[in-house]
Amino acid sequence: MKKLIDSPDSYLLQGLRGFGRAHADLVRVDLEQRFVVRREAPRAGKVTLVSGGGSGHEPLHGGVVGHGMLDAACPGEVFTSPTPDPILAATQAVNAGAGVVHIVKNYTGDVMNFQIAAELAADEGIQVETVLVDDDVAVEDSLYTAGRRGTGATVLVEKIAGACAEAGGSLADVVALGRRVAAQSRSFGVALTSCTTPAAGRPTFEIGPDEMEFGVGIHGEPGRRREKIRPASEIVREMADAILAELQPAGPRVLAFVNGLGGTPLGELYLVYDVLAEVLDGRGIEIGRSLVGSYVTSLDMAGASITLMTLDDELQGWWDAPVQSPALRWGR
Amino acid sequence: MKKLIDSPDSYLLQGLRGFGRAHADLVRVDLEQRFVVRREAPRAGKVTLVSGGGSGHEPLHGGVVGHGMLDAACPGEVFTSPTPDPILAATQAVNAGAGVVHIVKNYTGDVMNFQIAAELAADEGIQVETVLVDDDVAVEDSLYTAGRRGTGATVLVEKIAGACAEAGGSLADVVALGRRVAAQSRSFGVALTSCTTPAAGRPTFEIGPDEMEFGVGIHGEPGRRREKIRPASEIVREMADAILAELQPAGPRVLAFVNGLGGTPLGELYLVYDVLAEVLDGRGIEIGRSLVGSYVTSLDMAGASITLMTLDDELQGWWDAPVQSPALRWGR
Repeated sequence: MKKLIDSPDSYLLQGLRGFGRAHADLVRVDLEQRFVVRREAPRAGKVTLVSGGGSGHEPLHGGVVGHGMLDAACPGEVFTSPTPDPILAATQAVNAGAGVVHIVKNYTGDVMNFQIAAELAADEGIQVETVLVDDDVAVEDSLYTAGRRGTGATVLVEKIAGACAEAGGSLADVVALGRRVAAQSRSFGVALTSCTTPAAGRPTFEIGPDEMEFGVGIHGEPGRRREKIRPASEIVREMADAILAELQPAGPRVLAFVNGLGGTPLGELYLVYDVLAEVLDGRGIEIGRSLVGSYVTSLDMAGASITLMTLDDELQGWWDAPVQSPALRWGR
Repeated sequence: MKKLIDSPDSYLLQGLRGFGRAHADLVRVDLEQRFVVRREAPRAGKVTLVSGGGSGHEPLHGGVVGHGMLDAACPGEVFTSPTPDPILAATQAVNAGAGVVHIVKNYTGDVMNFQIAAELAADEGIQVETVLVDDDVAVEDSLYTAGRRGTGATVLVEKIAGACAEAGGSLADVVALGRRVAAQSRSFGVALTSCTTPAAGRPTFEIGPDEMEFGVGIHGEPGRRREKIRPASEIVREMADAILAELQPAGPRVLAFVNGLGGTPLGELYLVYDVLAEVLDGRGIEIGRSLVGSYVTSLDMAGASITLMTLDDELQGWWDAPVQSPALRWGR
């Protein structure tokens, strides 16, 4: 197996410990209870945000814990939902009396475990609201999902809801804003290769040397079809069309997020962005804000996803607000 | 070939155009003359920094053009030095009368072409000084190099010399500081897979499913030996030993940079960092500052390099200074 690891069993723990060591100025990692939390948490009176999900999508979610974004993140085993215990522990750790928002990608295990944790927290008098992210238009229902899968929009929800919470937004405000971002964002991904989990030690799925999976999920779930690889311009045009067909409300301005799945060089991601910009321009749509990089990955999978969010002045303002996390930093 | 491209011929141009579109708030891309320059360049009286080299190492160098780092970058064809023309054009574009510093990775083509460009610029009355980066201790001389290869330390030189230039440092100050950073930094890389250039369409070298290249260069040049892959702890320990044996001056505090070569997930890089922190701790060496991520890549190659720089208060201060580039951002 081609990985820089000691053993599949210790992979997650060692990586988390290294993450905590590298970013001790921003976060603290509770290795026992298995969550990442802002160094200064909890901050009295602040609405706090907790997310999480299976590991293997780094930098999501631990990498976006920090000022202006998440208060805590719960990394499960690779491609496996965290259990309710760490979610409850993280919720308790960040609770500052103003309510806690759970941001949950729409996978059956994540939804169930966050719900149990929310109920346990409620039993302790902590007010928890949930924002569900289900932006992937590739397929309805999938290997791990009922409904649309949650993918790239998670970064946008966490950034924008996080900015509102940082600015003193109420629980109702933060939740409404997070839900609006989720509702106005749609995504589509393609894979050129499979990924290899440390535990399995071999590719999650087989794919031919000239094939791609059109509409892949972030755990290697099947998409719309398997087909011969085509020029990037054709692929990106079809991805954009699939997204725009379901983007509501349709608007003249979007935030465009080109996301690498882990094994795709940055140069290709910028090429994808270039094609996307041309396609959107041809449709009369302006890119008001953009993000290009590997933020919601599938271990070493080669491929990319595109997320579009209908943008307005309010969302743009929250997007521009300062963020200081290991993976996203701007402003002060 | 498993790439999101239209054709090998248009790959670079489309990627650069996309990069310029995505980061128009920070940089301008001159597609004709083929260089990336800060949006606000030139700034009167400032010592300015130009770097460059073959493409395929993104985000280096274009991604570190911005406030507090480079003023311009010249991307050559993939793994091919830029010719003197774009280097001269970039030097002219950023020249603000206080001198221009060329930061050059030690590869024969880069050294030659930057030297020709420097002479042409001198003919026009532009004062150019060169900082050579040759930090890779894996091998002396290589496929493209006489002496040690230039790799990860380039990021450190560009950050620290860039901070000094931004603060109004003189040409002599900036050059001396850049050379000191290069002299105090040493690196070592390992590859688990090859990389595939768009033009070749097949892996640069063959490597078995259980093999690694110990001491690989950032173009896939051979290292010290080909061997069976081992646990990360063993690999990292030997990498650290190789670096520390040549790190001068040896000091009680270092900046530790764990760099991904493109195809290696962030989780593995943090695991490498964790082992490295343990190894250094065992040697009585403190990590004063750190950087973990894929900054000096080799397209889609799986693997990682480690760079250590002996750290003191002055270098740490420059490292902490604000930077606003597409790939590195902190402070204001």
